[in-house]
Amino acid sequence: MSHPEPPYELTLAEASRALAARELSPVELTDAVLGRIAEVDGHLGAYVTVVADAAREAAARAEREIAAGGHRGPLHGVPMALKDLIDVAGLPTTASSRVREGHRAERDATVAARLSEAGAVLLGKTHTHEFAFGLTTPQTRNAWAADRVAGGSSGGSAVAVASGTATFALGTDTGGSVRVPAALNGVVGLKPTYGLVSRHGVTPLSRSLDHVGVLARTAEDAGLVLGALAGYDPADPASLPGASFALPGGAPGDLRGLRVGVPRTYYFDRVAPEVEEAVRRAIDELRELGARLVDVDIPMAGRVREAQFGLLVPEAVAYHEETLRTSADLYTPEVRALLEGGGQVLAGDYLRAQRTRERMREEWARLFGTVDLVAAPTVTGTAARGDQEAVRWPDGTEESVSDTYVRLSAPANLAGVPSLSLPVGLDGAGLPVGMQLIGAPLAEATVLRAARAYETTRETVVGPPSAVTAPALAQ
Amino acid sequence: MSHPEPPYELTLAEASRALAARELSPVELTDAVLGRIAEVDGHLGAYVTVVADAAREAAARAEREIAAGGHRGPLHGVPMALKDLIDVAGLPTTASSRVREGHRAERDATVAARLSEAGAVLLGKTHTHEFAFGLTTPQTRNAWAADRVAGGSSGGSAVAVASGTATFALGTDTGGSVRVPAALNGVVGLKPTYGLVSRHGVTPLSRSLDHVGVLARTAEDAGLVLGALAGYDPADPASLPGASFALPGGAPGDLRGLRVGVPRTYYFDRVAPEVEEAVRRAIDELRELGARLVDVDIPMAGRVREAQFGLLVPEAVAYHEETLRTSADLYTPEVRALLEGGGQVLAGDYLRAQRTRERMREEWARLFGTVDLVAAPTVTGTAARGDQEAVRWPDGTEESVSDTYVRLSAPANLAGVPSLSLPVGLDGAGLPVGMQLIGAPLAEATVLRAARAYETTRETVVGPPSAVTAPALAQ
Repeated sequence: MSHPEPPYELTLAEASRALAARELSPVELTDAVLGRIAEVDGHLGAYVTVVADAAREAAARAEREIAAGGHRGPLHGVPMALKDLIDVAGLPTTASSRVREGHRAERDATVAARLSEAGAVLLGKTHTHEFAFGLTTPQTRNAWAADRVAGGSSGGSAVAVASGTATFALGTDTGGSVRVPAALNGVVGLKPTYGLVSRHGVTPLSRSLDHVGVLARTAEDAGLVLGALAGYDPADPASLPGASFALPGGAPGDLRGLRVGVPRTYYFDRVAPEVEEAVRRAIDELRELGARLVDVDIPMAGRVREAQFGLLVPEAVAYHEETLRTSADLYTPEVRALLEGGGQVLAGDYLRAQRTRERMREEWARLFGTVDLVAAPTVTGTAARGDQEAVRWPDGTEESVSDTYVRLSAPANLAGVPSLSLPVGLDGAGLPVGMQLIGAPLAEATVLRAARAYETTRETVVGPPSAVTAPALAQ
Repeated sequence: MSHPEPPYELTLAEASRALAARELSPVELTDAVLGRIAEVDGHLGAYVTVVADAAREAAARAEREIAAGGHRGPLHGVPMALKDLIDVAGLPTTASSRVREGHRAERDATVAARLSEAGAVLLGKTHTHEFAFGLTTPQTRNAWAADRVAGGSSGGSAVAVASGTATFALGTDTGGSVRVPAALNGVVGLKPTYGLVSRHGVTPLSRSLDHVGVLARTAEDAGLVLGALAGYDPADPASLPGASFALPGGAPGDLRGLRVGVPRTYYFDRVAPEVEEAVRRAIDELRELGARLVDVDIPMAGRVREAQFGLLVPEAVAYHEETLRTSADLYTPEVRALLEGGGQVLAGDYLRAQRTRERMREEWARLFGTVDLVAAPTVTGTAARGDQEAVRWPDGTEESVSDTYVRLSAPANLAGVPSLSLPVGLDGAGLPVGMQLIGAPLAEATVLRAARAYETTRETVVGPPSAVTAPALAQ
């Protein structure tokens, strides 16, 4: 039972193989990750709650089961973290908010239950921007540089995966909240098709835009986790009856026959030059792997912001209505102001936003009649400094950091299509850049195939977690 | 090329077999049905538009194709009608409203295109209650008694199928608009799972409750039509990716192993005694066929009306907003008053109705963990007289006829589950009674299996169309 790297640096696929071959034990792996949490999380602040004893017990149970020949599959004995919007029976779901003081979940969210059935070991709950209502996660530091934002709202989950304090993690994504922190911390973030993964037992931000997604070290890992999560759940009213996901077996191979759309509009507008450069280089790699590049225009791009907020604000206000009446002072001033500013929207305005979104879905579906994927930057820049409020673009316009973070990721939420962010290099300051691959509804296998093929072209996509957090710790 | 019955009386399955065996030609069948239209539709008023020449041409084309060995399947050469909310390229979609004067559709609705690909022959467009905004279809007479309402809003389609003026027809169902007229005219009406059949190119009433459904003479026929309609359509934003329907082959057989829920609450409250009696007798037949009866409670029944109208009104108003501003006087006073009364609903109220509906979906899904089907009356009574406005129940309450028509059918729209109405007898006045079989999402095959098994227990479920319309014509 030994492995060259510290076990907390293993990818999920590597850890799985070692666990199945009994070269590594779940207890050894979990202890290594818990040790890593003790070492770095005081500095990084990815976790709200760590359940070390329960994790050790679950790991010991997995060890006994595997020893007895009862290996359940790729997640068995693998330590992971859940964004603290996801219910786990007996634990509080804090939503990183004082509003939830004294909360305790009665039942597991469907995704928590599915991971538990798959034998994954829960380490704890990770920080979210309060109630997922923002894109920075102020409690958490970026894994690469302590003065930079973690991104959000699933910042804790992304930083945990980047820093070796979880082998994988779950987050939620309403306008980019899985993919943005994935990009800013150099890990993979997968937002699946709307309705493929249940949100039952997950605190909502905006029911028609919310998705549960995966933070992982590689696209292969993200696929293994999605395999355990995907499938119909009658307890989520948006769950797709009949939809399923099976991870394609074998090596990803080349990309011959794949049509990759390269946006002529929208996704490269007002983007930092180093981000554009890294993403275009990655797109060239896809071409070298056999993909055919096709210029595409992004449908209804000018209406993304209006549709996103026209849906999100009334839906968020509806969920918080009661608590706003009884305990408004427990919200952070920022979130309280956002909720109270949401005011009395008319049903007609909400339905107009819904109609715009529907037309976008149709247009995106048409686009996917001509290409298999769209490749684009995930975020317009790399991680901002914590005190930076706005970005000034060369064309003279100024944009809030939050707006820049949601701008390129929100279309996939509106269209309900799968999008995976993967690291494609570093900028001059040594901060990671993410590229997203966007696919047709339920085309997760295609998205993962392309991302895995890209990953095979590089030794390591980003530095290993210990290298990753070294600079952060040094600051 | 001859058949004992007049061809317009054939079920779709019988016609298909005869057409495939070339014992009947599409031209002969279409001519017979067009003749029947000429004979009775002046009296019944099922059709807005009849396209006799185009139908004859399509029938002649089908005849040539079948003669050349190119039989496309069970709908090839079969004459049918579309509710006049469904676009057909080059024809007006009148929605039975003056608002649509001068309208002409540019493209086929997806369902129209699918029927056309399957080789079905379009006879014309049938009357709807104006813009589907009611449950009587005042332009059309009941096929069984001229002084009775046709039911609605797909009244024209139901009367056409009942009277032999179409072998099958399509309708739409937002709160019962396929099943109610099916029940009141003694035919089968199938509302499929929400998202299984595309609504692209169909004028909406309420986007989150609208379904396209089938009017047919038997459950077997309804299944044949659903087979041609079902499947993902990216142009309908609510279409379920990955969902499909395959008609189970062979005879329906017995119902051993099937758990049929018999409502202890809601569905037998305030129901005409003769309707209750006929439905309970039909449920007993299901038991004799092998089904196990299970008493069930209907979830959240007290909130059906509030949820139905809380969603429908703002969605309908949103669609008509523009036209109401420009041409309010073209609506009938009844529909105009309904739309204008819809007023300025707040997004929060709309979202509360949506939340109620979501909780209903969850509860219904839980119910379908314990039974395979729920059997219940489709409508609280048989067809009302045209001038009747309200029903007074023995408990002293009074209810508008419209409310009685939507009461038992709306739950399946809210829950998004399949429901099929089939005739189960006549009341003392000789008017047909309908029973609905409600199934879990995408359990159309189970619903159809039970309905087909029931049908095998009787020689003819209702009188043949010529018998059906004889009394109507006599009045």
